[in-house]
Amino acid sequence: MERSLIKNLEENKLSKISGVVSKIRDTKYMVFIMLKDRSSFIQVSIDKNEQSKLADKALEITTGSIVAFEGEMKYSEYVKNGGKEFIPSSIEIISLAETIPLEENANSDTKLDYRWLDLRNDKNEYTFRIQSAFIEYMREYLYKEEFTEIHTPKLLGTASESGSDVFEVKYFDRKAYLAQSPQFYKQMAIASGLERVFEVAPAFRAENSNTNRHCTEFTSFDVELAYINSFYDVMHLEQEMLKYALGKLKENYGDIIKERYDMEIIVPTGDFPVIKLEDLLSELNRRYGYVIPEGDIGDMNAETEKLAYKYAMEEYNSEFLFVTDFKKEKRAFYHMRENDIPQGYDLIWRGMEITTGAQREHRYEKLCNQAKEKGLGKDVEFYLQFFRYGCAPHGGFAIGVDRLTLLLLGFDHIRDAQFIFRNPSRLNP
Amino acid sequence: MERSLIKNLEENKLSKISGVVSKIRDTKYMVFIMLKDRSSFIQVSIDKNEQSKLADKALEITTGSIVAFEGEMKYSEYVKNGGKEFIPSSIEIISLAETIPLEENANSDTKLDYRWLDLRNDKNEYTFRIQSAFIEYMREYLYKEEFTEIHTPKLLGTASESGSDVFEVKYFDRKAYLAQSPQFYKQMAIASGLERVFEVAPAFRAENSNTNRHCTEFTSFDVELAYINSFYDVMHLEQEMLKYALGKLKENYGDIIKERYDMEIIVPTGDFPVIKLEDLLSELNRRYGYVIPEGDIGDMNAETEKLAYKYAMEEYNSEFLFVTDFKKEKRAFYHMRENDIPQGYDLIWRGMEITTGAQREHRYEKLCNQAKEKGLGKDVEFYLQFFRYGCAPHGGFAIGVDRLTLLLLGFDHIRDAQFIFRNPSRLNP
Repeated sequence: MERSLIKNLEENKLSKISGVVSKIRDTKYMVFIMLKDRSSFIQVSIDKNEQSKLADKALEITTGSIVAFEGEMKYSEYVKNGGKEFIPSSIEIISLAETIPLEENANSDTKLDYRWLDLRNDKNEYTFRIQSAFIEYMREYLYKEEFTEIHTPKLLGTASESGSDVFEVKYFDRKAYLAQSPQFYKQMAIASGLERVFEVAPAFRAENSNTNRHCTEFTSFDVELAYINSFYDVMHLEQEMLKYALGKLKENYGDIIKERYDMEIIVPTGDFPVIKLEDLLSELNRRYGYVIPEGDIGDMNAETEKLAYKYAMEEYNSEFLFVTDFKKEKRAFYHMRENDIPQGYDLIWRGMEITTGAQREHRYEKLCNQAKEKGLGKDVEFYLQFFRYGCAPHGGFAIGVDRLTLLLLGFDHIRDAQFIFRNPSRLNP
Repeated sequence: MERSLIKNLEENKLSKISGVVSKIRDTKYMVFIMLKDRSSFIQVSIDKNEQSKLADKALEITTGSIVAFEGEMKYSEYVKNGGKEFIPSSIEIISLAETIPLEENANSDTKLDYRWLDLRNDKNEYTFRIQSAFIEYMREYLYKEEFTEIHTPKLLGTASESGSDVFEVKYFDRKAYLAQSPQFYKQMAIASGLERVFEVAPAFRAENSNTNRHCTEFTSFDVELAYINSFYDVMHLEQEMLKYALGKLKENYGDIIKERYDMEIIVPTGDFPVIKLEDLLSELNRRYGYVIPEGDIGDMNAETEKLAYKYAMEEYNSEFLFVTDFKKEKRAFYHMRENDIPQGYDLIWRGMEITTGAQREHRYEKLCNQAKEKGLGKDVEFYLQFFRYGCAPHGGFAIGVDRLTLLLLGFDHIRDAQFIFRNPSRLNP
């Protein structure tokens, strides 16, 4: 018999369901098995007197096992959750689980060690469906806007932007380096005439830090578009993409996110508020007495981002805030400058920076000067060439998918937002 | 003035267009500039007598430059291609190109060195739009079938399947390895209860070979689904996904592919033919006198794949052919076996293998034995654990996106199907 999904079961119709056993309850007269598939879950009820052989077999089943039942769905006044239960006529144990070694109150390291079991957890199981949908909707928006998805190399010949945070690879008889971002290549795409490109791919950072938002590998959602008038066009695109994606997420997953993660999706309506960094810092000082540490002047740190969110909520009732006019010393060399001010922004959502975006410097000589000023030489030489033979004005941004997921679902730690977490001390499973 | 796309221009309406200059022709009375944007191209015509200042400025423009024109589109009997031309009232040179160093008849290495210029070529420019669309349509099919897109780590703690072809990474004070495929992790997703998953991501192979279909980094389209009855369910899914994607490709890009690549998209209708490897080899022998070399018995080589395509066209008028019943010695340890026969397949399209698929062995003890038989020990230990605590029957397949693009567009070499090509001797740009 073909398998039916639990959500599609019809009353009194002989059906076959299969899934993972999440709970078994052995009572005096009954055996109850909670069965889950990707669509839903249902209680399978076996009467020990009426179905003694089935009951015996059911008691062999362990939590985590994969089991198929044939039988009929019935409505019962004794059952919660819509009153459905499944009365089986046969049981097939497809895969018998050993005793699950992961306790619910295990520490986070043990949970990561057994990540595939940890993901069976009620809350975790939806995380990646929601993440998948979020990306799907963002892509959908970009396809409609005539963007092309590209796939750029992760193995590079030079250490590019900032040698210190780059992983080194043994590449036959020489060295290669893992891409920290597709920045140079999405700009190459622009120089090649693909006017609007994006990429969703892993990015690698050899940062030896173990905070709750750092990881050595993450999924980066990178966008770049040509023929912009200023970086405001980039901000607008990102804003509209996020509004579209959050709207569809709310429509399709709003209830689940509320129920399982206790988080509300707020779909922004108008434009996101925009503030210059200097003005923001004055406001934070005036309102909350905040003084930014000397070393962070011209940039934001974690504390600034938190307070910026508080300010945006208070002042604009907005979860999002664009911050502009950073100091050039704190921005990448390829950000275009006007009157020495980088033509870019950070986007704050719920107290964290989720994006850096900018118009790029597409004029070869200016770009060379800015690279030199940052002390960059041979490593960026190949990149500078892209701008010698004609290149349209362009800009773009990158969103960390994992961080976006963390903020969407209200996690404390980036590890919960990654299918498999990677940091300096973790390479398994 | 806001930019208009060339394809949207209306006759006699003042508009601004911008794009890349692909050709300049200086005649006695006229200057002609061919301008391209992402939507189309148009001839910009300047009368030297009537617009002498504009003509002077136009003659400063070099091929490859990014230029904006304001003016009006007119229909003219002197112009080919629908008879449209653009009569400018102003010119803005946005980015002046140096002399393009890439000749049309340059050798392939030079072309790769200047890949971003090579991509401006009429034929190449569409390759990645078409590749992007192909992936979009395959994804679309999977979303409809309730698949979740996952993002699995590329940095691994062990060398996994076959140590020799794996890139080694310096990971702080120890070693990591680059994933050759997401195989183990998409199976982990199944063990975690995500019944249907896929991933589109880079895969890395440290194979020191320089053939026309090898590369050290490529984009892999990986699919895995649970609760299958046999590997025929996997084949069916792949077949339907490809039919759907090819159908939409034909609809949206069929003409362009015909015109620019001289290739026809043939959308299969019924089921793809299926043949056992042994039967295929007999047929190839009977029909074409082909004898497979001793070492390749139980598997396919490039020659077999070519002839298999010939056979499929002759016998079934099908570009696709599923080949089953390979020898277990030639297949990965995780392929399920029945009577010692691997429960998997290769899919041949246009003379090349584009996929290996299989039902996986989800039974822990059998899987351990099969790993041991292949001499695999510590490196796969973490993977074997996924199957101890309940795992649904499952299977999947992987498609090399670059190879798929090569076959779709009729390229001779995989380098033409990759945005940036990587092989043992090439790490730039």
